[in-house]
Amino acid sequence: MYLQLSTWPDIEAYLKHSSGVVIPIGSTEQHGPTGLIGTDAICPETIAGGMAEQDILVAPTLSIGVAQHHLAFPGSMTLRPTTLIAVIRDVVASLASQGFTHFYFLNGHGGNIAPVHTAFAEIWSEASLSSEPSNLHLKLGNWFAGPRVNRLSQELFGDADGKHATASEVSLTWHAYPEQQRDAELEPRRAPDGAIRDAAGYRANFPDGRIASEPQLATREHGRRFYEAGLADALEEYRRFVSPAEG
Amino acid sequence: MYLQLSTWPDIEAYLKHSSGVVIPIGSTEQHGPTGLIGTDAICPETIAGGMAEQDILVAPTLSIGVAQHHLAFPGSMTLRPTTLIAVIRDVVASLASQGFTHFYFLNGHGGNIAPVHTAFAEIWSEASLSSEPSNLHLKLGNWFAGPRVNRLSQELFGDADGKHATASEVSLTWHAYPEQQRDAELEPRRAPDGAIRDAAGYRANFPDGRIASEPQLATREHGRRFYEAGLADALEEYRRFVSPAEG
Amino acid sequence: MYLQLSTWPDIEAYLKHSSGVVIPIGSTEQHGPTGLIGTDAICPETIAGGMAEQDILVAPTLSIGVAQHHLAFPGSMTLRPTTLIAVIRDVVASLASQGFTHFYFLNGHGGNIAPVHTAFAEIWSEASLSSEPSNLHLKLGNWFAGPRVNRLSQELFGDADGKHATASEVSLTWHAYPEQQRDAELEPRRAPDGAIRDAAGYRANFPDGRIASEPQLATREHGRRFYEAGLADALEEYRRFVSPAEG
Amino acid sequence: MYLQLSTWPDIEAYLKHSSGVVIPIGSTEQHGPTGLIGTDAICPETIAGGMAEQDILVAPTLSIGVAQHHLAFPGSMTLRPTTLIAVIRDVVASLASQGFTHFYFLNGHGGNIAPVHTAFAEIWSEASLSSEPSNLHLKLGNWFAGPRVNRLSQELFGDADGKHATASEVSLTWHAYPEQQRDAELEPRRAPDGAIRDAAGYRANFPDGRIASEPQLATREHGRRFYEAGLADALEEYRRFVSPAEG
Amino acid sequence: MYLQLSTWPDIEAYLKHSSGVVIPIGSTEQHGPTGLIGTDAICPETIAGGMAEQDILVAPTLSIGVAQHHLAFPGSMTLRPTTLIAVIRDVVASLASQGFTHFYFLNGHGGNIAPVHTAFAEIWSEASLSSEPSNLHLKLGNWFAGPRVNRLSQELFGDADGKHATASEVSLTWHAYPEQQRDAELEPRRAPDGAIRDAAGYRANFPDGRIASEPQLATREHGRRFYEAGLADALEEYRRFVSPAEG
Amino acid sequence: MYLQLSTWPDIEAYLKHSSGVVIPIGSTEQHGPTGLIGTDAICPETIAGGMAEQDILVAPTLSIGVAQHHLAFPGSMTLRPTTLIAVIRDVVASLASQGFTHFYFLNGHGGNIAPVHTAFAEIWSEASLSSEPSNLHLKLGNWFAGPRVNRLSQELFGDADGKHATASEVSLTWHAYPEQQRDAELEPRRAPDGAIRDAAGYRANFPDGRIASEPQLATREHGRRFYEAGLADALEEYRRFVSPAEG
Repeated sequence: MYLQLSTWPDIEAYLKHSSGVVIPIGSTEQHGPTGLIGTDAICPETIAGGMAEQDILVAPTLSIGVAQHHLAFPGSMTLRPTTLIAVIRDVVASLASQGFTHFYFLNGHGGNIAPVHTAFAEIWSEASLSSEPSNLHLKLGNWFAGPRVNRLSQELFGDADGKHATASEVSLTWHAYPEQQRDAELEPRRAPDGAIRDAAGYRANFPDGRIASEPQLATREHGRRFYEAGLADALEEYRRFVSPAEG
Repeated sequence: MYLQLSTWPDIEAYLKHSSGVVIPIGSTEQHGPTGLIGTDAICPETIAGGMAEQDILVAPTLSIGVAQHHLAFPGSMTLRPTTLIAVIRDVVASLASQGFTHFYFLNGHGGNIAPVHTAFAEIWSEASLSSEPSNLHLKLGNWFAGPRVNRLSQELFGDADGKHATASEVSLTWHAYPEQQRDAELEPRRAPDGAIRDAAGYRANFPDGRIASEPQLATREHGRRFYEAGLADALEEYRRFVSPAEG
Repeated sequence: MYLQLSTWPDIEAYLKHSSGVVIPIGSTEQHGPTGLIGTDAICPETIAGGMAEQDILVAPTLSIGVAQHHLAFPGSMTLRPTTLIAVIRDVVASLASQGFTHFYFLNGHGGNIAPVHTAFAEIWSEASLSSEPSNLHLKLGNWFAGPRVNRLSQELFGDADGKHATASEVSLTWHAYPEQQRDAELEPRRAPDGAIRDAAGYRANFPDGRIASEPQLATREHGRRFYEAGLADALEEYRRFVSPAEG
Repeated sequence: MYLQLSTWPDIEAYLKHSSGVVIPIGSTEQHGPTGLIGTDAICPETIAGGMAEQDILVAPTLSIGVAQHHLAFPGSMTLRPTTLIAVIRDVVASLASQGFTHFYFLNGHGGNIAPVHTAFAEIWSEASLSSEPSNLHLKLGNWFAGPRVNRLSQELFGDADGKHATASEVSLTWHAYPEQQRDAELEPRRAPDGAIRDAAGYRANFPDGRIASEPQLATREHGRRFYEAGLADALEEYRRFVSPAEG
Repeated sequence: MYLQLSTWPDIEAYLKHSSGVVIPIGSTEQHGPTGLIGTDAICPETIAGGMAEQDILVAPTLSIGVAQHHLAFPGSMTLRPTTLIAVIRDVVASLASQGFTHFYFLNGHGGNIAPVHTAFAEIWSEASLSSEPSNLHLKLGNWFAGPRVNRLSQELFGDADGKHATASEVSLTWHAYPEQQRDAELEPRRAPDGAIRDAAGYRANFPDGRIASEPQLATREHGRRFYEAGLADALEEYRRFVSPAEG
Repeated sequence: MYLQLSTWPDIEAYLKHSSGVVIPIGSTEQHGPTGLIGTDAICPETIAGGMAEQDILVAPTLSIGVAQHHLAFPGSMTLRPTTLIAVIRDVVASLASQGFTHFYFLNGHGGNIAPVHTAFAEIWSEASLSSEPSNLHLKLGNWFAGPRVNRLSQELFGDADGKHATASEVSLTWHAYPEQQRDAELEPRRAPDGAIRDAAGYRANFPDGRIASEPQLATREHGRRFYEAGLADALEEYRRFVSPAEG
């Protein structure tokens, strides 16, 4: 069930049996010479699509994340972290005003993890500083870090999966957009590893944008399997999150 | 050409012949008992899809706008205006750092008009207060206000098109998502008109969410015609915007 | 009745029969070689003076608006739009805390329109996101856009009135400050038209500061007529605004 | 010379021989049962008027200051301190972009002193944190604290002048607006003294709004003398401030 | 009683008989060639240590203040004033949420005075703009400005104590850290006096960092006397502040 | 070498051979019935003390972190995350303006991890959005997560060390403040485990403040060993961080 494709009476009805919502959050940033700039948004959006088929409400994807370190590659976009915090604060407050209590952000980008957790603390701070209890349950799930996905990545690629522009995520985007498959020789075969700082430093250390990865290993069929693993991981985590026992 | 479905070398190549980009911007808010909550994002996104087919770069849709007045209807979301200003500031700065100069926001929501223009003034203020020239060209186009669209609305609906949850926009969403067509008796046939304030006041004045409209007049075929009119309007405006004469 | 020239018991008494207030808002910016820098504040302040004579409460003029595009001309001042939003938020909250509910901003500057409407949405957002009804009624009236003023402008100047440093507003400032009348040859007679961006771009496109106008047509007698037309427009709009029917 | 009553070529000419400007800053707040709400803006504005006659450039008065503690009395207005800081930052940056270097804020309200000095530190912080020298000279002068004014207050009222709604300032407003003179019995004759906190606490401690004062001692003739003393104090301080030796 | 060396049940018990707390606030900034960079934090922290021995609760020292003007000397640190305002707002709100009502900031740095008072007004503004009474009592005490300390400074140094890197404060740091005593010839013997602006201007006017002072006069024994005088001043002021009569 | 106990010429000399600095960062929050409220600040401050003995520059401890979830226990303090981001931004900018390039934050509190990393991204965003290279190297080290500390914790306590108010950290505070040792029966012996949300939820789930821990296992001798392990971990990580190879 997609929020954008629902009417307000649909949501009114949904709230009678659930106060949970899934919000895909990604990034719009370079993913090496062959990876799509939208990779980090496409991946959680695709998996959330499977959740939507199971009567779980899915909000519009937050497509732009914190990716300042990628800006030296054309097409990359970032929000300042404090901007993303404000966006998440407003998104949560909007739906909370109508009775939603459980917000599951399904994330596709490592650079969002700290800012999203920081946004959660910012939101709860208002209640805590007012000595008022909050009924908000906020959780970040990373599709690329679930147990089934990790096992599959290990099985298919071992440590060749790397850290940015990985074969895992490229495979999943090809599952979602089969016509976007691109092949290219990449030199070196495996990209270098290292630490991330600002955009200029990133491009100096990782000249083609990849980190420690071999996206050449991606296939559409692998992508199908990552979709299934990712969906199972996300469903399991979401259902536990919204269950009364966990609440 | 979609930014999300491009690679960074694609964008590097694009920048050699164009420094313009289209950014659809919408809202996620109730559109009456039968209109989709995503209407205001779907409409500009759909028209931008036609622009993308003509080798114009289209960035990810900013799906959440300023819609505080709709919050009393479940599923509606808002950014505070100052949050949207920060988002636009960061989005523009990101792509400007790579050489983009012309930003065309294709808008689907009346409530965004003032905040987006305000964001433009905020962005230019930095240059102006520093006595530095800005090379940024920022424009907001409203798909629903172009000359061809207005003529078509007048021809098909006259003043029955109304102001919110209009037959025009509902038609266009059905063109984009034919399976989402919904029929319902609406009482009164034409919704009341009036002024907008906060969310509680809005729901009191407009009990089913519509303003002055008769979305019952929508058809998928009308939607196809709005798509064509809207695309022609947007292409004309965009091309004038990025032409050197206008620059 | 001027707020600044009242005592607090005066205002306490006023609140027993009215909860409305007029707040003139303008700008401090160049108005061409012969127009006063204070034009956009003087005009609404002058008209509001007429309202004050009719027992309507008039607050101090907000003299500095959003005028970043004028900064390349000495003497021009701007607030960043987000600063103006904060000012309006605080001004409204101050008087609202004492029982005022209807705020009519009488505006003299086009560049304020978007930021002031954005401020209104920012103010209502707090109530809407808290699921609380707001009793605040916020309206922006532009003295230069009322029906009587527009008719008079058309009658006296036709399309020679132009867009910035217009004969209409210059006339009105001469009505208010007769000793400030200035005559000068201006070249070209009618200033060029075009789009507004940042300050450097503005001065490049509009070298003497005017846009599409012929302030040479201004006279003090015209100014008297604009004062009367503007006052009638503003009184009509304000009275409708504060009437229970409209509320 | 008033900025609002000048043209941009006038200011261009002024900048050839001076880069200093006077900015009156006041407050809009209750001044007891008989004092005008605009007292703290009227006083510095009136004295600045004398400076304007001596070819010193005077900008529009910033009429609303930090007066949160007065809000329990109708008609009082406040800016949050952080809002006032933003206003001052933008005002200074605007004129600095055109070559102004010396900003003399002529103040009428004790509650503005800390926020204005804080704004100065905020402005200089940008330069200091960037290891760049600033050419901005920022000074706050309090009309009520100059040597001649203090001597006159002592001579006329001794310690009966008090702290808020003083006979000094009331006298000066009557000099400026003779028709606004109001007489009333006040009980107690001299208002109580004490500490200031929030608005509710203020009204509880100072029921009619005055602090330690006897505005009944005010006369229009005293006001004329305060005007002359205040003008001499301000001129002396301003001239020393803009002189190269002090620079 | 130190907050950091207490447990939460200790504080729960403390709140049964007192709702007051002392918060030392200082700065980390150059203090001339021989003064410690931590001088302005060490001094109030040391005096607060004496208060802690008398069962007054002492919170952790806020060691970094507003010191933008010192940044041209290595090791100096500043918060922007608006940052310090946010820190103080959060610190007060945290303890206020648990029942603390009286906050006594014991300050060691002149540059903090305006920002801390501004923070107080910012905090009270929230209550005042909401027409709600605040139970917060906020006070800034400057250890260097108490009556006993001033008398001692006058007695020991007269006007040679100066304004920055004074013999008084250097003496007190030597009392606290006897092993940190440093002797050096300083040229000129007494540092120059003047006005403070930004960092570059400060270093130009005060080449070794001192202002009008002769820290060569400092001794450890003087420091002991300043400690005793400062403690007596602070205890007296704090006890008056938290007494019901003053409340 | 402590920044606070240095003079500016000391720091000028230090910068000739190193541009690195250690900044301890902690929290002021409840640590169960027997743990000190200052635990999370005391631990990194104590270990940084060992680094200071090895000629590494140590700045003042940032004692207040993000601890909104602890506020329901008296004595706990928090900064809003956005406040902490501003503090870190200013601290880094201050020392960077003087030539420091490597900032090592030695952290004692899990709740700071996301906000500090978010602050790093915020800082780098400014450079990245300006297409300028940043020379800032920013790193967060958690004393409780180093390899030697983890081994020691496992050896001494196994999984009884838990998550909040752990035997490890309590031991270390007793090493630093031997006189603060407190013994108490705690019921249940091992505290419950669970998820963290706001303050009220925290106190409901963890009634005495501990999470999954048995601080009864703490001893002063264990604390000595944690100090040595923590110091070795931190020294190793810091030296790698500032080495040219890593740079």
